[in-house]
Formats: sequence, C-alpha cells, structure tokens
Amino acid sequence: MLKKIPKSLSPQLVKTLMEMGHGDEIVLGDANFPSSSVSSNVIRADGLSGAVLLEAILELFPLDSYADPSVILMEVVPGDDYKPEIWEDYKAILGASGEPFSIGYLERFDFYERAKKAYAVVATGEEALYANIILKKGVVR
Amino acid sequence: MLKKIPKSLSPQLVKTLMEMGHGDEIVLGDANFPSSSVSSNVIRADGLSGAVLLEAILELFPLDSYADPSVILMEVVPGDDYKPEIWEDYKAILGASGEPFSIGYLERFDFYERAKKAYAVVATGEEALYANIILKKGVVR
Amino acid sequence: MLKKIPKSLSPQLVKTLMEMGHGDEIVLGDANFPSSSVSSNVIRADGLSGAVLLEAILELFPLDSYADPSVILMEVVPGDDYKPEIWEDYKAILGASGEPFSIGYLERFDFYERAKKAYAVVATGEEALYANIILKKGVVR
Amino acid sequence: MLKKIPKSLSPQLVKTLMEMGHGDEIVLGDANFPSSSVSSNVIRADGLSGAVLLEAILELFPLDSYADPSVILMEVVPGDDYKPEIWEDYKAILGASGEPFSIGYLERFDFYERAKKAYAVVATGEEALYANIILKKGVVR
Amino acid sequence: MLKKIPKSLSPQLVKTLMEMGHGDEIVLGDANFPSSSVSSNVIRADGLSGAVLLEAILELFPLDSYADPSVILMEVVPGDDYKPEIWEDYKAILGASGEPFSIGYLERFDFYERAKKAYAVVATGEEALYANIILKKGVVR
Amino acid sequence: MLKKIPKSLSPQLVKTLMEMGHGDEIVLGDANFPSSSVSSNVIRADGLSGAVLLEAILELFPLDSYADPSVILMEVVPGDDYKPEIWEDYKAILGASGEPFSIGYLERFDFYERAKKAYAVVATGEEALYANIILKKGVVR
Amino acid sequence: MLKKIPKSLSPQLVKTLMEMGHGDEIVLGDANFPSSSVSSNVIRADGLSGAVLLEAILELFPLDSYADPSVILMEVVPGDDYKPEIWEDYKAILGASGEPFSIGYLERFDFYERAKKAYAVVATGEEALYANIILKKGVVR
Amino acid sequence: MLKKIPKSLSPQLVKTLMEMGHGDEIVLGDANFPSSSVSSNVIRADGLSGAVLLEAILELFPLDSYADPSVILMEVVPGDDYKPEIWEDYKAILGASGEPFSIGYLERFDFYERAKKAYAVVATGEEALYANIILKKGVVR
Amino acid sequence: MLKKIPKSLSPQLVKTLMEMGHGDEIVLGDANFPSSSVSSNVIRADGLSGAVLLEAILELFPLDSYADPSVILMEVVPGDDYKPEIWEDYKAILGASGEPFSIGYLERFDFYERAKKAYAVVATGEEALYANIILKKGVVR
Amino acid sequence: MLKKIPKSLSPQLVKTLMEMGHGDEIVLGDANFPSSSVSSNVIRADGLSGAVLLEAILELFPLDSYADPSVILMEVVPGDDYKPEIWEDYKAILGASGEPFSIGYLERFDFYERAKKAYAVVATGEEALYANIILKKGVVR
Repeated sequence: MLKKIPKSLSPQLVKTLMEMGHGDEIVLGDANFPSSSVSSNVIRADGLSGAVLLEAILELFPLDSYADPSVILMEVVPGDDYKPEIWEDYKAILGASGEPFSIGYLERFDFYERAKKAYAVVATGEEALYANIILKKGVVR
Repeated sequence: MLKKIPKSLSPQLVKTLMEMGHGDEIVLGDANFPSSSVSSNVIRADGLSGAVLLEAILELFPLDSYADPSVILMEVVPGDDYKPEIWEDYKAILGASGEPFSIGYLERFDFYERAKKAYAVVATGEEALYANIILKKGVVR
Repeated sequence: MLKKIPKSLSPQLVKTLMEMGHGDEIVLGDANFPSSSVSSNVIRADGLSGAVLLEAILELFPLDSYADPSVILMEVVPGDDYKPEIWEDYKAILGASGEPFSIGYLERFDFYERAKKAYAVVATGEEALYANIILKKGVVR
Repeated sequence: MLKKIPKSLSPQLVKTLMEMGHGDEIVLGDANFPSSSVSSNVIRADGLSGAVLLEAILELFPLDSYADPSVILMEVVPGDDYKPEIWEDYKAILGASGEPFSIGYLERFDFYERAKKAYAVVATGEEALYANIILKKGVVR
Repeated sequence: MLKKIPKSLSPQLVKTLMEMGHGDEIVLGDANFPSSSVSSNVIRADGLSGAVLLEAILELFPLDSYADPSVILMEVVPGDDYKPEIWEDYKAILGASGEPFSIGYLERFDFYERAKKAYAVVATGEEALYANIILKKGVVR
Repeated sequence: MLKKIPKSLSPQLVKTLMEMGHGDEIVLGDANFPSSSVSSNVIRADGLSGAVLLEAILELFPLDSYADPSVILMEVVPGDDYKPEIWEDYKAILGASGEPFSIGYLERFDFYERAKKAYAVVATGEEALYANIILKKGVVR
Repeated sequence: MLKKIPKSLSPQLVKTLMEMGHGDEIVLGDANFPSSSVSSNVIRADGLSGAVLLEAILELFPLDSYADPSVILMEVVPGDDYKPEIWEDYKAILGASGEPFSIGYLERFDFYERAKKAYAVVATGEEALYANIILKKGVVR
Repeated sequence: MLKKIPKSLSPQLVKTLMEMGHGDEIVLGDANFPSSSVSSNVIRADGLSGAVLLEAILELFPLDSYADPSVILMEVVPGDDYKPEIWEDYKAILGASGEPFSIGYLERFDFYERAKKAYAVVATGEEALYANIILKKGVVR
Repeated sequence: MLKKIPKSLSPQLVKTLMEMGHGDEIVLGDANFPSSSVSSNVIRADGLSGAVLLEAILELFPLDSYADPSVILMEVVPGDDYKPEIWEDYKAILGASGEPFSIGYLERFDFYERAKKAYAVVATGEEALYANIILKKGVVR
Repeated sequence: MLKKIPKSLSPQLVKTLMEMGHGDEIVLGDANFPSSSVSSNVIRADGLSGAVLLEAILELFPLDSYADPSVILMEVVPGDDYKPEIWEDYKAILGASGEPFSIGYLERFDFYERAKKAYAVVATGEEALYANIILKKGVVR
C-alpha cells in the first residue's frame, strides 16, 4: 500500500496503467471472460467487482478525449434475454470520475477481437454477465 | 470460475494450495506485511479482506491435526496499544470451517522468520493491523 | 490434494480450467494424440484414462449452453474398421454430469486444426483409439 | 507412447530416470507428501497409485546393490495408530522386479531431509498414508 | 542408462519420442544437415552414425501404417554423381524392425521444407552424404 | 503518466514501492554508488537528482514510525574533507513531507552491508558525493 | 558514470545506441507516447525532458547523411489547435550538434507504424505534447 | 584457448559455425552494419577486423561448392564515390584458404534481406565501409 | 562439422572446452556416473565411448603441466572385485596425445566431491565400470 | 559504433563499466585465465590484446583514489621462470591515462579469490602469460 493510490489496485496493475500511453486500451473482463485466451498480458483481480476496479482505475487513468467512443461495452447476444444492470453502475462511476467519455458497443466476437489488440486485460471477479468494459487512455496534461 | 471452487481464489492460489503437502505452511499477509521480502512465492490478492480469503481457503484446505499450533497469529508489538479485532473474525471462521485447530502466537520478527520458510505468501488487501495469519496444511483422508 | 477437488486433477490442470473463460476449448487427447505438436500448452496426465479425467473435469467445468456443439469427437478415418466403444462411456459421463451438451464430429485433420486453437490440451493415457474429445467452456452463473 | 516403455510413465519421468546415475535417489511421494517444498525437481503423477508407478519404474530402473538400504520407507509417527498396508504391496512389487533390495526406515522429518537431497520427487496420487518410498539407483551392467 | 532402453538414445531424445503422437515426424539429419536452421527443437547426437540411431529408435518407435510413405529420404541432387550406399543399410534396419513401412523421396529443398514442420530433428554424426531420413510416428495399440 | 502519481517515478519504481511492506528498506544510491553490486533489484533513474526522487517518493511512501532511525545516511569517510550539503536538502524534503522521521548514520562499508539487505536500490543520477539515503517503509493506516 | 559519456544516459540506453547500425532508428517518445505498445524494446527515462535526452544522445550518435529525412516529428492532429514549441528546442539542439540533418513529418498513426519498426523506443518524461522524435543512425567514419 | 582453433574466434562463434549445415549462411557485418536489427543471433566481435575474422573462420569453415555464388558482398550505393579496398583483402584471403568460391554482389537493401535469413551475424569491428560479407557453408567430406 | 575439429565433439562441448581456463577441470563420466546430480553444466554424449571422447578432446585440450596430478581416476570401491581395463586404454591415449600428464586416484565419494567443483561434466555412453576421468586444463602457449 | 567511445569496447562492456560504482572491481583476464569459472558475469573479448583493452577502458573508467592499491596484478608462480614483459606495457598505459594509481600483487589463488568477488571479468585474447589485471573503480566528480 502507498498513500494516494487506491488500495484495490495491485502493483502490477498500476505499473501497467503507467506504461500505457495515448490511445492504448485496457479491458476489464468479467469472471466469465476468456481473458487468458485473448491476451498474453493478463492481470488477475479475482474476487473484486467490476465497479470497485473501474472506480479505482479512474482515480488515476485519463480517458481519451480524442476518441469516440473512449469506452466500449459488449452487446447482449441476440436471443439472450438479459438486461445488464451493471451498465448503469459503470455509467454512474464514469460520470462521477470527471473524465469526459462516450460509450460504444461491440458484438461479442468483435469485442473479443478488439480485446486481443488491447494493451492488457484485467481478469476481474465480477460475476454479473456482460460486465466487460474497455477503456481507452487519454493524455495527461 | 469453476463450479465448487470459491470465486475469490485466483487460479495461481488454488494451484499453490494443491501443491502444498502435509506440514507446509501458507501465510496470509495483511496489506502492510512485507510479503515480497520474506518470500519469492507471493500471490497477490489486493483488495480482498483477510476474512474473505480465510473463509474461501478453508473450504478447500485441511488444517494439520498432527501439529500444535496449526494456526499462528502475530503478537502485538509491546508498547503498541492496539487490539486486533480481526482475530475474533478469524476465530469465528476457523470454528465454522469444521477443521480442528489450535492457535499459537509469535513475536513480530519471529513471525517474519517463520514466514520465510512458508511455502507461499498471499498478499491480501486486509487493512486492519496485525491481520497476518499462518495456516499449516493437514492430511486429506 | 484439497477437499472438494477431484484427486485425479493436477494443480496445473485445475489452474488451467480456472483461467479458461466462456467459449474457450480444452482437448483431452488420447495416448496416441499428437498433443505436443498441436499445442504449446500441454498438460500431461499419463496413465489416466479418458473417462476418469472427463468425469473429474465435469465436476468443476460448465459446458457452453450458447454453442452447438459444445462437445466434439474425432470421426473414424474412412476405411478404418473401428467402433469407438469409449464414446458410449463419454456420453454416459456427460449425461450424468448434469451439464447440457450436444455432440459434434470432426474429420481427423479438421479435429487437429480445431485443437491448435484450443486453450490447452490434456495428454491423457487413454489407450483406446479415437478417444479424443474437445470441451467448450460455458458460463458459471 | 512407445513400445517397451510402461505407459504410465510420463516423458519427463523417463527422462529423469535416464539422467540419474549410480547412487542417485528418487522419491515417490504420496498425495499428502510435501513434494514441492522438499524439491525443485517435482514430477507430477496425480491420480496414479504408488503401486502402479513403483511397478512401472522398476521395469526400467536398477536398484543399488552397493547400498544398504537401497529402498527407504517413512516410519509411522509415534502415537499414530496406523498400519501401512501399502508396504506389503510395495514389498511384493520389489520382490517381483528381480532387483536385489534391502529396506530401511526413516523417521518423518529425517525422511524429509533425505528427500531434499534426492534427484527428483514424483508427486503420486496415492491416497494411502505413509506411502512414500525412496529408491536408490544402481548400476546397469 | 536404464534397462530395456537402447543405450545410444539420450534422455532428451527418448522424452521427445514419447511426446510425439500419431502422424508426427522426426528427422535424422546427417552431419552436414542444417539441423539448427530448419528446427528450433534439435537434439544433438554428434559422433553417432545414422544406422546406430535408426536401429535404436525403431526398437521403441512405431511407424505410421496409415501413411504412405511413412519414411522419407532425400533425393540426390541432379548432377551430383553419388550413390548413397547408406540407404541400403537403412532399408535393412527398417526391414529388421518388424514395423511396416514404405519409402518416399523428396528433392533437397522440399525435404528441408518438410523438415521445418517436423516435431524434432536429431543432429547425428553420420558422415555419409544423403543420409537424412524422416520417420512418421504410428499408433501404439 | 497517470493522474496523482509523481511524474518522475518510473512504472517499475512505483510497483516496487507498492510491493514493499512494513520495515522494508529502499536505497537511493547516488551516481557513484555501486548499486548493481549490492543488489539484484536495481531500478535505474539516471539523470534524476536525489532531491527530485526523494520528494516524489515521499508523496506516496510512509516512513516507519516504529523504527529509530527510519532514515539512514552514509557517513563521510574519515580523512575525506567534504561537507555533504545535499543532506540539508534531504532534511528539508523529509520535513516538508509530513512523515515523522529520525536520521541515523552508517560508516561506508556498514552502509553497503545494509544496502545489500534492502528490498531495492534506485540508481539515481545524483552527482553530489555522499548523497546515498535509505528509507524504511512504515504502515499505511 | 563514466568519463566522456553524458550522465543522463542509462547503461542500457548507451548499449542500445552502440548496437544500432546504419539506418536503424530510435524513437524518443514523450510521456504520453504509447511506447510499450509499439515496441518490445523500451528504455525508460522517466522524469527526463526530451531536450536533455536529445542533446545527450547527439553527443554520441551520428545522423544518417544518406537518408532524407534523418529526423522525423509527429504532425499535429488536424483540429488540434496546438503549436509544439518544443520543436524549436529540438531544432536548436540538432543544429548545435554539428550533425547534418533534415526533418520530415508523419501523421500520428503513420508515426506509430514507423515507431513499430524502430530498433528501440526511449520512454522520456517529456510532458509537452507532440514531443516525439525519431532519429536515424548514420555511419561513424 | 584450445590447440588448433584460431585464437580470435570466440567460443560462441565456433559453436555457431559447428551448428551450421550445408547451405546455411553467416554474415560478417562491418562496424556500421545494423547487425542487431537484422538478426536475433548476433555474435559480437568488436575491435577485430574483417580480415582477421575471415581468415580465422576459413581455417575451419568449408564453402559451398554446390552454390554459385558462395560468397556475397554488398554493392556500393549508387552515388557513393567509394572504392572498397577491403574487397581485395577478402579475395586474397579467400584465395589462400584453398576453398573453391565464387563471389556475388547484392544491392544494400537486398543484402539486408539476405542477412535476415542468415543463420547468424558476426558484428565485427571492421571500420572500412562496405566490408560486409556473407559466407555459405559447404559440406565437410 | 568443421575442418580440423574432431567430429565426435558436439558444438556445446567445444564451446565449453574453449571457455575453460588454466586449472579448470572437466569430468568424463561413464554411463553410470551421476552426472546431473553433481553438476548443473552437463553435456550429453550418449552412445560414445570414453576412449573416443578422450582422444578427441586431447586433440584440442592442453593438460596442466603446473599440477600434479593433471588427470584423476576413480578408485575401485574396496570389496569390488573389478579390474578396470579401460584405464589401460586411457593411458595409451594420454601417452599418444603428446601432452605431459600424471595420474592421481580418488576414492568414489571424494571423486564425486571433486566433480562437483569441475567446470563441466560430459555424460558419456561408456558402459565399462570405473571409467570416469577428470582432466585439468593447462596453458596454451 | 558511437562517437567518443573507443571502438574496441563492446556494447555489453560499456554497459557494464557504466553500471559499476565506487569500489567495484573489473578483471581483465588473459586468454588462459579461468574467466567462466570465477565469474557468472563474463564479457568475451577474444582476439583483443590486454593493452588495447586497458587503454580503451581507461579512456572512460576512473580509478579509485581512495584505495591502495587500485590496480592488482597476478604474481608469477614461484618456480616459474618467467618475466611478464606485458606489465611494463600496462604501467605505461596506466601512466598515460592521467588516472592516479598504485599497483598491488596477489598470489595466483588469492588473485582467483579476488576475481570471484569482482563485478565482471573481461575474457581478453591476450596470449602473454601473467597478463591478468584488476581495476578498481573510482568516483567521477
């Protein structure tokens, strides 16, 4: 633990967020997300919810004001009758962060392809379905 | 995630618990514990409380009925006016696990020496002080 | 050994199953299967039958209810007069697991190509021919 | 699989047995044995019994006719009312192997110290207690 | 050394032969063969003749009865007035092995391309020219 | 770069500071300090002054209020007529950090021995002589 | 530190500059540049300005007189109302170095593609925007 | 040092020359050659001239009598008014070696592409320009 | 293969012999010698006799004329009625090499201790008993 | 190659000299010196004389003015009738470097022990006997 740095972030995760630059993306995968097959740079965060991690990350991490969207969610698979309530939590946290943001949506397999190009994937313990989220890093001025 | 396995345990932590044998010890270090300097086999569990992890581990992990004590806590440093309330939580979880156990106490630097010989150290996110605990593995019959 | 976890599963195999996510596939290769040439992520399980491993894995592993098929077997090579009796054992174990499943079949070299994309291959000791099987991981709700 | 080589032996285990020379020792640890804490050269054989492995190993492995004992078992801990029936199985297999042998016994922690100096440890799936056994390699003439 | 295993085979080579499965190929390259540039999995056997190694390997290794050819030799380069007498030795050893086999021939650079896809290359000490040979592994029944 | 984290700290250095626990020590070595021979965990910070790094580190890093001293400087070698003016800068930065601290002094080779036991060494670009400083980590409450 | 070598250059950076040959390129990325995602050969120089590093590097590093341009800057993104004043500093340093040079400009994503082919990327601490610069190595006569 | 082996050849270089087979190529890059960017198998020979190395290598290394050319030089870049006198030295050494040879020439970037496919690159200290040379290995009869 | 270098020596073995300096020792272990337990630097030479290797090594390797003995053999274990005829072969090869030498003898376990300090161990395929031999490297003048 | 840096120094050697600090020692071993057995940090410089390397190193490397001696040579072994003329060359180069120095002498095996503690060993190609030399690094002011 250090002063100022949110306590739910692991040393490896903070190092990763620091290494990222303008335009790099990080995925918060939910507990069912195939993190290890889409990325060789996986940071485990078992047992932690997506909301706790998103809030902690946004204390440090600027979103990309040059890009639209700067945040990406995974669309519900057609035929899957599920309403991802966690999206409302995510939006509230994004709004409270003070960072400008816009949200885009990707179909499941398109989301996987996008995740394969991300800088890193955080394997969260979020048990809600469709709780995966991608964040695009902005510039620190 | 898998069926039957507590969701707060990371793949690396379960693998480690499986590799351990009779008499091997694992340390749950609190968020101030010098995990990385006492062990080269550290498993990060930032953001998770000691109680959550202890309960999850004991679902899988037998305590050593041959040893007395099978559980070790770190004594409060003389002059430090602190009452570790978390010990009561730990005792309740141990009691509820159904595993036989007895608790011993070690002075801070003796605890560190013991931890250096442990099979692994879990770096928990537990913010309470004196929340370090050592578990000795028993036999699965 | 741990409580609750089937004893024929190695620590590395359980870790692997935990790391896998929705849609990831694992191959149980029989003792003649070219495991090491189709995958760089091989887990040895010499001496263990396919049935023992399949049953143990299904105690922990959910099958993918979104996919059809969620289980794949390797077709008998045309001209090879062989009836894979082990398939009946596999079907009985799948049925007893309580997981929903549907079975597909792939020609030998198509099966190899599919195996190359799998998350991992378990090199079992199953001596029966045509005893290879692919399992697709589902969601833990 | 190869012709002539017992099928329950993994490639890594056969390689290890071949690398060993006169006087080197290998431990077959039972499923409760702390294999990974006594050795950095552990070969997993989860799910396989001690008897299956011992028999397979002795098809290939000569015992040391220069040493007395060439085989070591772990004594029952005083106060532990247990009769290791598996010892009779081991003796029968040793007798049937055609290798000359003599058996010694070591107290639990002396056994651990001896195991630390061994060339390798096989982590078997043998669930019987006190099923650990050390074999000392002889000369192939 | 172990009982039953031919003494000219190194531990790494036996491990490799064991890991191979149905349809995998191994190259015995002669002492002029560019082993290290065609494969990242080279097993050195300097000083040993091709015949000694072929005979030893075939004691353990089944040839592929599903494939035609199961053995491949490298054609003499047009214009090179050389008669590879070693081929007769190889054929005699193949015949004596009891394994069914059929022999194919590949032009020099086609042979190299085939070797690049092989599971492993043994860099033998065979000084005869055109002494390279590929073996395709069969099924152990 | 991230919000809140001082920009002169590298990702590896922040990760290291986070991994450290109560009582662990970090050395800021000056540009003549034999960092790589006293530690296998060296973090390069060439070109940066000791004062810049000390101030940035203390924004995040708590000093150990249980230990006396919690800060250690290297004594001037007897006979070396040098007055380390940088010590006054260091004391001002320590004072301004708000962390409680007490300073101790070690003879050159005792300082080296202490440094060998530290968790890490930062190889700064500080060109002043006798600018080495050890910090002992405290508890984050 | 050594005599003659600029003190702000790390050992790894000097080694890298030495290894480079005619036509190889090195990127000085600013503090927002996605260094780690465009290169696997990143040298951290946190906290150091682009001007300090450029001047130090040019003391040692020849520019390519065969190539036009030998220096590349990143164009301002259309719509971004920003005038990179640091470019004037860079030009002054280049001019003072005595090396012949010509400057080219690349659009942001073209610059990224060029950086992916560079020999190495220095992750500087330069906080100015559009402060990325590529240098092409010339011949030492 | 060993008897019979030229003293200017490093252990790694001799090992590399031994590993190479018929048709494999080795590059002697001059001191400006981008060795590390064209090859991941670079052997440093700083401070040694191309002539010293060429002569030493040819004491051991056969040239390929099947190939024309078996030796390749890098053409002078059009417009570069330079006459590579070192080529005469190289030719004299090749002639004195007793090996049959024929020389080809490649344009600068074609030479780089060829070098990327070579088995290894020796980074010599030769300061003359256009002193790069590729040797193709022949058969030892 | 290269010109001048004995063909039974592997690239790794020649590299090792070259790296050794005055006073360094190399062990030729027979096929029963515990090479891998006495050394972490083992070079396999399965299938090759001790005589073939000794003769080839002595073509390149100078013996230490400063040391007495420069060659060490392993004494027959008391009670073992065995006359190592191979010693006569070794002596003949040593005599024919032209290197000055003197032979010493060490008891089995003293020999093992000496071997643990050697620079490397060659695991030969020599099947004769007591065929182990240590060579001490001299100076090349 | 770079401007200002002596061309006979390899990138790895310059990196090593930069990493060294006050009091660290580097050994220049002659071509018979057992470099690889006294150090795990060996930098090869085959083919280069001790004088060339010493002169090049001293262009960059300060000697330790706090230590007496700062330079160490290896004494001639009693009974060895040899006068190391290279010492005069070394002394001339040391004198011409402008660095203050004093020379000490160590008996052969004491020299080896000292070398084992050095930061690195340069394996030069110097063929003269007794040409080993240790340099102790000083402070750059």
